Amino acid sequence: MKLIRHQREEKGVRLSTESNPNQVPSPSEQSRGHSAAGHVGLWLIGARGSVATTAATGLAAIRTGLAPATGCVTSQDGFSSIPLPKFSDLIIGGHDISDVSIAKRAEYLVGAGMLSQHLVNALYEELEETDSRIRPGYDPSCRGESQAEAARRLANDINEFKISHSLDRVVVIDVSSTEAPIDYLPEFDDIGLLLAALEDPSRDILPPSSLSAYASILAEASYICFTPSPSLNIPALRQLAAERGVPTAGQDGKTGQTWLRSVLAPGLAARGLKVLSWSGANLLGGGDGATLADPQAVAGKLQSKNRGLQSLTNGATTPLHIDNVPDLGETKVAWDHINVEGFLGSRVTLQTTWSAYDSMLAAPMILDLARLMGLADASGHRGPVGEFGFFFKDPWGSDEHSFAEQSRRLLEWAREAGTHVALERTNEKDATQYGVGAR
Amino acid sequence: MKLIRHQREEKGVRLSTESNPNQVPSPSEQSRGHSAAGHVGLWLIGARGSVATTAATGLAAIRTGLAPATGCVTSQDGFSSIPLPKFSDLIIGGHDISDVSIAKRAEYLVGAGMLSQHLVNALYEELEETDSRIRPGYDPSCRGESQAEAARRLANDINEFKISHSLDRVVVIDVSSTEAPIDYLPEFDDIGLLLAALEDPSRDILPPSSLSAYASILAEASYICFTPSPSLNIPALRQLAAERGVPTAGQDGKTGQTWLRSVLAPGLAARGLKVLSWSGANLLGGGDGATLADPQAVAGKLQSKNRGLQSLTNGATTPLHIDNVPDLGETKVAWDHINVEGFLGSRVTLQTTWSAYDSMLAAPMILDLARLMGLADASGHRGPVGEFGFFFKDPWGSDEHSFAEQSRRLLEWAREAGTHVALERTNEKDATQYGVGAR
Amino acid sequence: MKLIRHQREEKGVRLSTESNPNQVPSPSEQSRGHSAAGHVGLWLIGARGSVATTAATGLAAIRTGLAPATGCVTSQDGFSSIPLPKFSDLIIGGHDISDVSIAKRAEYLVGAGMLSQHLVNALYEELEETDSRIRPGYDPSCRGESQAEAARRLANDINEFKISHSLDRVVVIDVSSTEAPIDYLPEFDDIGLLLAALEDPSRDILPPSSLSAYASILAEASYICFTPSPSLNIPALRQLAAERGVPTAGQDGKTGQTWLRSVLAPGLAARGLKVLSWSGANLLGGGDGATLADPQAVAGKLQSKNRGLQSLTNGATTPLHIDNVPDLGETKVAWDHINVEGFLGSRVTLQTTWSAYDSMLAAPMILDLARLMGLADASGHRGPVGEFGFFFKDPWGSDEHSFAEQSRRLLEWAREAGTHVALERTNEKDATQYGVGAR
Amino acid sequence: MKLIRHQREEKGVRLSTESNPNQVPSPSEQSRGHSAAGHVGLWLIGARGSVATTAATGLAAIRTGLAPATGCVTSQDGFSSIPLPKFSDLIIGGHDISDVSIAKRAEYLVGAGMLSQHLVNALYEELEETDSRIRPGYDPSCRGESQAEAARRLANDINEFKISHSLDRVVVIDVSSTEAPIDYLPEFDDIGLLLAALEDPSRDILPPSSLSAYASILAEASYICFTPSPSLNIPALRQLAAERGVPTAGQDGKTGQTWLRSVLAPGLAARGLKVLSWSGANLLGGGDGATLADPQAVAGKLQSKNRGLQSLTNGATTPLHIDNVPDLGETKVAWDHINVEGFLGSRVTLQTTWSAYDSMLAAPMILDLARLMGLADASGHRGPVGEFGFFFKDPWGSDEHSFAEQSRRLLEWAREAGTHVALERTNEKDATQYGVGAR
Ligand SMILES: NC(=O)c1ccc[n+]([C@@H]2O[C@H](COP(=O)([O-])OP(=O)(O)OC[C@H]3O[C@@H](n4cnc5c(N)ncnc54)[C@H](O)[C@@H]3O)[C@@H](O)[C@H]2O)c1
Ligand SMILES: NC(=O)c1ccc[n+]([C@@H]2O[C@H](COP(=O)([O-])OP(=O)(O)OC[C@H]3O[C@@H](n4cnc5c(N)ncnc54)[C@H](O)[C@@H]3O)[C@@H](O)[C@H]2O)c1
Ligand SMILES: NC(=O)c1ccc[n+]([C@@H]2O[C@H](COP(=O)([O-])OP(=O)(O)OC[C@H]3O[C@@H](n4cnc5c(N)ncnc54)[C@H](O)[C@@H]3O)[C@@H](O)[C@H]2O)c1
Ligand SMILES: NC(=O)c1ccc[n+]([C@@H]2O[C@H](COP(=O)([O-])OP(=O)(O)OC[C@H]3O[C@@H](n4cnc5c(N)ncnc54)[C@H](O)[C@@H]3O)[C@@H](O)[C@H]2O)c1
Ligand code: NA
Ligand code: NA
Repeated sequence: MKLIRHQREEKGVRLSTESNPNQVPSPSEQSRGHSAAGHVGLWLIGARGSVATTAATGLAAIRTGLAPATGCVTSQDGFSSIPLPKFSDLIIGGHDISDVSIAKRAEYLVGAGMLSQHLVNALYEELEETDSRIRPGYDPSCRGESQAEAARRLANDINEFKISHSLDRVVVIDVSSTEAPIDYLPEFDDIGLLLAALEDPSRDILPPSSLSAYASILAEASYICFTPSPSLNIPALRQLAAERGVPTAGQDGKTGQTWLRSVLAPGLAARGLKVLSWSGANLLGGGDGATLADPQAVAGKLQSKNRGLQSLTNGATTPLHIDNVPDLGETKVAWDHINVEGFLGSRVTLQTTWSAYDSMLAAPMILDLARLMGLADASGHRGPVGEFGFFFKDPWGSDEHSFAEQSRRLLEWAREAGTHVALERTNEKDATQYGVGAR
Repeated sequence: MKLIRHQREEKGVRLSTESNPNQVPSPSEQSRGHSAAGHVGLWLIGARGSVATTAATGLAAIRTGLAPATGCVTSQDGFSSIPLPKFSDLIIGGHDISDVSIAKRAEYLVGAGMLSQHLVNALYEELEETDSRIRPGYDPSCRGESQAEAARRLANDINEFKISHSLDRVVVIDVSSTEAPIDYLPEFDDIGLLLAALEDPSRDILPPSSLSAYASILAEASYICFTPSPSLNIPALRQLAAERGVPTAGQDGKTGQTWLRSVLAPGLAARGLKVLSWSGANLLGGGDGATLADPQAVAGKLQSKNRGLQSLTNGATTPLHIDNVPDLGETKVAWDHINVEGFLGSRVTLQTTWSAYDSMLAAPMILDLARLMGLADASGHRGPVGEFGFFFKDPWGSDEHSFAEQSRRLLEWAREAGTHVALERTNEKDATQYGVGAR
Repeated sequence: MKLIRHQREEKGVRLSTESNPNQVPSPSEQSRGHSAAGHVGLWLIGARGSVATTAATGLAAIRTGLAPATGCVTSQDGFSSIPLPKFSDLIIGGHDISDVSIAKRAEYLVGAGMLSQHLVNALYEELEETDSRIRPGYDPSCRGESQAEAARRLANDINEFKISHSLDRVVVIDVSSTEAPIDYLPEFDDIGLLLAALEDPSRDILPPSSLSAYASILAEASYICFTPSPSLNIPALRQLAAERGVPTAGQDGKTGQTWLRSVLAPGLAARGLKVLSWSGANLLGGGDGATLADPQAVAGKLQSKNRGLQSLTNGATTPLHIDNVPDLGETKVAWDHINVEGFLGSRVTLQTTWSAYDSMLAAPMILDLARLMGLADASGHRGPVGEFGFFFKDPWGSDEHSFAEQSRRLLEWAREAGTHVALERTNEKDATQYGVGAR
Repeated sequence: MKLIRHQREEKGVRLSTESNPNQVPSPSEQSRGHSAAGHVGLWLIGARGSVATTAATGLAAIRTGLAPATGCVTSQDGFSSIPLPKFSDLIIGGHDISDVSIAKRAEYLVGAGMLSQHLVNALYEELEETDSRIRPGYDPSCRGESQAEAARRLANDINEFKISHSLDRVVVIDVSSTEAPIDYLPEFDDIGLLLAALEDPSRDILPPSSLSAYASILAEASYICFTPSPSLNIPALRQLAAERGVPTAGQDGKTGQTWLRSVLAPGLAARGLKVLSWSGANLLGGGDGATLADPQAVAGKLQSKNRGLQSLTNGATTPLHIDNVPDLGETKVAWDHINVEGFLGSRVTLQTTWSAYDSMLAAPMILDLARLMGLADASGHRGPVGEFGFFFKDPWGSDEHSFAEQSRRLLEWAREAGTHVALERTNEKDATQYGVGAR
């Protein structure tokens, strides 16, 4: 395990040094060359969906100065001295099974009132160019190859992307359609059995999200799951990821209602108030709405949304529904009714109504995650980054759900990782100057 | 200044040692004798109002085991090892200008649906007894005495309360009717001029809240302002308080809408979202509603409510209204409409509706403040306790408005103060055991 | 059919004349003797439930002058000249399968914050007396009798009630627990088959609500279904009811959210606005909440709630959920999110939040229905009274769902029925005066 | 008075017959020639504002088939057989004091997210053409002419518009900026004094809205006040209008919150429920928001909004605020909190949140009013049309505020007026056929 990771680091470092021989590992570098974390490829599974298209449009807008990075945590003051990859160090590619290009999808999002015509016009060519880096994803409805072959094909796409763009590292983020929870199989607990089953062309043992995660492991890319799909929740896969030492983070982006709950619930608790019930309704249209209209697909989402709330409220009554309301388009509306017990058995009632373009909340987090995961990878992190729980409904590697506490931990982590990277870079540079090889 | 404070401490310590010669300053003491902070008198200005009556009923209910201390910060796990005065170490007295007894007021609050008939029946005698410790407050409409004479009379009431109940310390909390902001006078900047004006029976230079604050200083009691009234916001008075070294805290209890804002706004900021406007409506009935129906009185409240929000949102548009809606009785309803700028200029809209019996939120905070201020006083704190900003819309001694951060600081402060008190008590005890005087 | 009905009328008239020989059929009678519609027995199925208990308490309170008839349509000015049975002409009896008496249930509703202690204390004896008129209902879990025997027993209870209290007529109202929708059986379409199956002690062909409806038909009482249960929705039963000529009304009381929708939707339509979606959430506790927690039971309620909305919005998207939130107790909270298309494709969004004690809305309608059905019966009405759609989510005998239109029709109907009854009474009286028998 | 009106009618009829000699006064005509009410000029005061621009854009879109007439009452089925002027019979002109053309304003409304870029592009030329019919309004800040001269100038503009476009009639609608309430002057009660004061170049006795109304009277055009400004609320002016016999309607368009209240309040009343308080908050940006930020200007609006609610609730507590929140742009958000007393003193709480582009609600009503007032004028109506109360917060000529009742009355009125016009046209035609002159 150590060995594998070491190789990855060496590779990363080598690529890095090759392309940027005279780097200075200081924050000030942010404005000059690229950052200590190098060039980062952002490989999106579901690269032509709403979230991905918004992230791609936003990245282009930020880079060309057409929009500020509002909504990006990493562009806040607290992060300014941390050697994160810069927005201009990010390049987007990805997989999708849809044929509608990012640029076309962006046009559609203009029609839905979400993106401005002006912006999309200005960035149209750049979006077309981004789209040229999208490869066909794994389509479970198309047979022919074994899942192992499919995974190797996907991994190969990622590797080619990395090499052809001389990237220091690739961060894979899954923003594809939500999948239903899956039933247990014995192969899920045994790497050997799993790998054998994957080679069998007559079997489809892994759901697409898990297959993509497996491909990321093969490509030794960092892997982030922004959806509530099965993904790495298969023990044998998680074990494989651990063995390869790839940094991972997940799961299910905490953008709207769940985020709000993770802000409010700890506040109520800190006041000594006891939540009795927290009832919720979610209305959404768009692609995600259509997907979640399927009772199977919605099951995973509901579980993922409720887990944190259960933990934050010590098991209050928490009924929750998600409805597909096509006329809402890309807007998501969430209503919460919170019944709280206060002093002498009295009641406090709090209602919240949240309304937002969901992808507009997710997209800046995708860019944040790419930057932060770039740093994690550069700093040699292995396995789940619990401090990225800030971004997720159902955090891997952490039980903390309080957003305030997650904010504190994220910044602290970034400072430490940043210091680590900066120090390494200084050592490296010193070593290089004095004729010593890169570690 | 040091000297004065020293005397106070000695007095406090002496009383304390007299009444509890064999105290053990450990948390376990909580369940045996009284705490390291000794017996604490809670002197309420406005002792027959809704907040005070609810606090008195609640204290009696907690002490007799009829109700848990839900809504009290200090009864949470994090505080369990801190040597705070116990609920059973608190005894309530106070000033009011109303003739309706606490017990009668409690009956009225039963009719308003706020307190349970059962509870008030069970505690009626104890409430009558508490009421017997209430003395006539300073009534600005009754002339005869100079304000200096009035202040001495009020201070005397506090002193008698302390002596007759063998209290280690008294915490004064102003929960009387909100007053209007006042106009500047030259005497407010000059202690000498102010004291002279107070002796002039033809002048009423101080508003009642400031006169009560002055009386607290004279009585060397800790002083807390739970209202948005002028209180210690008169430089000469504040200077006097500083010279006497009394611990103080304020101002304007952060119970409902403003509290909610101080939870949400930092959360939005941590996500890199930009608040554009935060519009609010407040509906309330009851005594407070009637008082705030006066455009003069409401002015101070509105200022106090808006200050924190302005600071937390970097100057967003924040229109705010408070309306007297008598049929709401003791219930307060607050609606907020928050318009937020997100990624690529998109909008997030959040609405909140809060509904609660306002005094049910305030009362546990009054008990918390009495316990914490008892600890502050026991630990030798002087001047404003900025860490009590947790409880206030307009904190004295602190610019922090984020509730999550305030929660962290309060607990940290309490731990340090607790350790300090515990150590002192150990030293004291050792000294006593070895025949040495109390310090 | 005509014959049967004629007998009924004669009986009614006879009883009526016996007990009030000198009646004057004018509205002014309202304040003197009993009304033209005579003494009306109100027989409640589910007589110990929340709705029934609240109705019984309310009737007692109105009669003794302890409370005004707020919430009763029939106590409004428009109805003052109509010869409805007076509140003092109503007497309550009923069936239930619970052993908890009305008075005890009322105590429980005091604890739930719904009824006032004061009121229940004052009316305790009267409630006990009402409870003495409650007989064991049909309990589907207790076997032994055939359903035909059970129905005869139930009908007998109603007849005894009528005779022993010298009532002019009995109105049966079903306010028992909501039942699940049922599967089709061939017997449901054929009276002969149905009656045969009822006699078979090994079969339970009818759900309890339908059995109660059948018993009402047997007793020749008017029948009203206030629940969404199967009730008369069995063709053979409906045919039986039609043959016997009993007046009927239903179904499912339109008290809260659905009522609000029937007010708003026609308003939007009258403005030429087009509803795209109307999404709803319902939270409730109490007995009804517990019943509806069962996915089977809730199905009928959801259908019944959605039917009117579908009709009023021309088939908009209308997702709807009902959740059991025990801590809400007897309170029902409903949130609606309405998305409307306006001029030039623009959007209007309306949200409503409704919060009320559900039984407090239902109870006055039960009293209204008893009075109005008393009038319908006195006026010789047969079959479903479509004009009572005012009270129902899923009106029998009418397709009108607009509340404004329903209000207009109800009043118009009452005026006509009232005139009819008054005329008949005058004729009757004249006939009596001139020695002619009552018809 | 009669005489004057008679002349108007003759003129109207003559013009009408001249331009359409072979009209058939049947509904089917709607699709062939123009309607019985002839060509109608719609003269907007404030013709370059949001409401006017949206109405002009909408009219062009409807006429060219780019959009349906959603939101127009008169395009509903109930009105289809009534001989209203058709949308294609309407032509817009008007007064404004702004130099920004309608087309430019439409562009701005695209930026505000209200109008679609697509639509405005398609209609740009037509909007420019409409703008060419706008004349400089009366600007109170520009002195030089007496108010009488100004009024004659404005009236002349209207007359020229009528003649140059061969219009059968002109309907003036004031949609200019809201003005503050005005103080009483003796001239307001005396036509002679008022006319004299108008001739005095040193006096500005009338506010602009009243001057425009006066100009309409001079031009013998029908006059509608869509704002809460003083307008015809000056007795001497109202008397003048009555003498000239011009049909009038007003006042203050009932588009959003007030409309909603007029739907809900009668519904609650019909249930026998008693509104205790109805508290409201209004947030808006845009031009109207900026105008109403002035405490003077907002006073009239608040009065106008509250009048109907007071009448519908029998004097409940109705606090109301309007806040200028610039970031909301053209969107208006209104929150209402309604506290209702139900059965046995229980409470129902209803909250509503309304969010819409305000001008999108107003614009179709402007087109409706033009059509309906065209019909009123054609049918010989004189003075206030109370049945147009449907459209107004503060109806002239009616005390009815219930929207359901107003809907009923509007349709009934339109049917009668339509029949009247159709009959007249038939007579006319017969007369013409038989060689007799038009009356
Ligand atoms: N705020 C948010 O938007 C938010 C928050 C949390 C989680 N998420 C999750 O993010 C995901 C994306 O949301 P969206 O709104 O962009 O949805 P979307 O439907 O617009 O996009 C999903 C994309 O995934 C593609 N896809 C489907 N199957 C694929 C496969 N096997 N391989 C590759 N691509 C595939 C689709 O073609 C589509 O382009 C969803 O799972 C959603 O639950 C979104
Ligand atoms: N959640 C809350 O309830 C809350 C939150 C923040 C601040 N506050 C503040 O707490 C205060 C009390 O609120 P309340 O609801 O109990 O009001 P209340 O009107 O019920 O009680 C005020 C009491 O003060 C007494 N009083 C008036 N003038 C006095 C004087 N000169 N000396 C002594 N007593 C005097 C009155 O007689 C009355 O008994 C108000 O200023 C309110 O703004 C309350
Ligand atoms: N606003 C409202 O409260 C409202 C509105 C519409 C419809 N309803 C319907 O009214 C009914 C009563 O509501 P509730 O809140 O009083 O419920 P509840 O649970 O308090 O009362 C139901 C009563 O029915 C009795 N019961 C059950 N099965 C019976 C049987 N076979 N025979 C006789 N009695 C039986 C139960 O013992 C109980 O006392 C429900 O069906 C509800 O859906 C209520
Ligand atoms: N839903 C609604 O939009 C609604 C509802 C009810 C009433 N209203 C009323 O309609 C009016 C227009 O609203 P808006 O949003 O279009 O406002 P706006 O500010 O966009 O437009 C007002 C227009 O009036 C013009 N104007 C000002 N003074 C004038 C004068 N003396 N003569 C001629 N023109 C003049 C201005 O230049 C501007 O173009 C307001 O009074 C508003 O209160 C609007
Ligand atoms: Na401060
Ligand atoms: Na029907």
